[in-house]
Amino acid sequence: MTTGARTETVPRTGREARARARAGATGPTAGWAPGHAQANLIAVPAEWAYDVLLFCTRNPRPCPVLDVTDARAWTTVLAPGADLRTDLPRYRVWEDGLLVDEPTDVTAHWRRDLVAFLIGCSFTFEASLAAAGVPLRHVEQGRNVPMYVTDRRCRPAGRLHGPMVVSMRPVPGPLVETARRVSALMPAVHGAPVHAGDPAALGIGNLGRPDFGDAVAAEPGDVPVFWACGVTPQAAVVASRPPFALTHAPGRMLITDVRDAQYRVA
Amino acid sequence: MTTGARTETVPRTGREARARARAGATGPTAGWAPGHAQANLIAVPAEWAYDVLLFCTRNPRPCPVLDVTDARAWTTVLAPGADLRTDLPRYRVWEDGLLVDEPTDVTAHWRRDLVAFLIGCSFTFEASLAAAGVPLRHVEQGRNVPMYVTDRRCRPAGRLHGPMVVSMRPVPGPLVETARRVSALMPAVHGAPVHAGDPAALGIGNLGRPDFGDAVAAEPGDVPVFWACGVTPQAAVVASRPPFALTHAPGRMLITDVRDAQYRVA
Repeated sequence: MTTGARTETVPRTGREARARARAGATGPTAGWAPGHAQANLIAVPAEWAYDVLLFCTRNPRPCPVLDVTDARAWTTVLAPGADLRTDLPRYRVWEDGLLVDEPTDVTAHWRRDLVAFLIGCSFTFEASLAAAGVPLRHVEQGRNVPMYVTDRRCRPAGRLHGPMVVSMRPVPGPLVETARRVSALMPAVHGAPVHAGDPAALGIGNLGRPDFGDAVAAEPGDVPVFWACGVTPQAAVVASRPPFALTHAPGRMLITDVRDAQYRVA
Repeated sequence: MTTGARTETVPRTGREARARARAGATGPTAGWAPGHAQANLIAVPAEWAYDVLLFCTRNPRPCPVLDVTDARAWTTVLAPGADLRTDLPRYRVWEDGLLVDEPTDVTAHWRRDLVAFLIGCSFTFEASLAAAGVPLRHVEQGRNVPMYVTDRRCRPAGRLHGPMVVSMRPVPGPLVETARRVSALMPAVHGAPVHAGDPAALGIGNLGRPDFGDAVAAEPGDVPVFWACGVTPQAAVVASRPPFALTHAPGRMLITDVRDAQYRVA
């Protein structure tokens, strides 16, 4: 689906962004609160928490963990005052690996035994890309970033297995190395691209038909650049069928209060 | 205790280093197999594995996880063919938070329900420091790196809590920034220093009396530089008293087959 025109003004702070999501704005959140880290969400019953945490640990490129809640908490140190049940623009509800609902609020779905994982998001380095002169086609075009399921398998963990998902940004050829260098310094939000150039190298057949998000038009001379993506746990949910999970909807992230620079290692 | 003179020749590969440890060499392993990643070890009963993994996730500076074994395995993807029960130079055996033995082989202690965590080690960036011209005083002096328990508390996780441990290297003042820059690019092996200069800023009273390892003599003009240390889980064992744990002995690491460059993000 196409996600419609870009909002006219973007929220400037994490608090503003979360208030807007709580009030019903559905995103996508690329471009929101520039300079603030964004985060993917997956929440599972405590009985599955070790498998999820191990899966993330073994697959740090797509699943860098920024925070883990304690059971019975819907708060995170990344955004004091945030309510993880309401403050993302849109969620997905999963039962036995099937998507059963896509609400804007999961208060009614939040079981008391859930453990929530907040995972780094590549939107976090987009302000740095822009500052380095790398255009963001999806933001320019008012679309969600396109995401693709690849043929690369994640390293399994307990009951969890599945393919790696990537996001794609068309980058002008002469700026691909700049994009690589800028993102590489932020490993907690996926770091360097996993591939640039040939979609087929990742088993992607048609860039015009992303598995999540919107197709984005490349400009002449653009090269498709692929980064590991925090939707990967959702692909693992589909493949591994835990009895229950809540996630964000792709591209609809938690906006945190953490400055993106905090995830830059040098 | 002083750990005696440096071995005359150092092993060159992970396999050579592990064979030497298996044959009885007791380390410390700083300087072994230059260019290869080294790893801290902590193994706990499966029932404690989530707490350990969460503790590491919440404290990535001292506890960056490089690999986690499955229960009933004593192998790691970091060093194919290695046996984690025999291939470290020296171990520590912990019961209820008390150190009860320090053997060179833990085959007899390895319970079938253990899960082992391999954690990044700052020895891994020492070859890069040396290549950048930063002298390694502890290696020059044939000593183990000195380690100190600080007054910084780790973020607790489940039943685990405790202070951060740091390693210290005296670095010539003009090279402190070089040391920072080189290590910052390797966050999976502790990354940038947590402090340089005043030991009291970390609650360290006397550099001449490290909590682990050996005191190392500074040269005139050296500044003490402190990095988060993978002995931190051992301090958590002391503070939190799990019924059982196996760890490496400080400074006696697993030498992996992974090239250190693999942990350099840029």
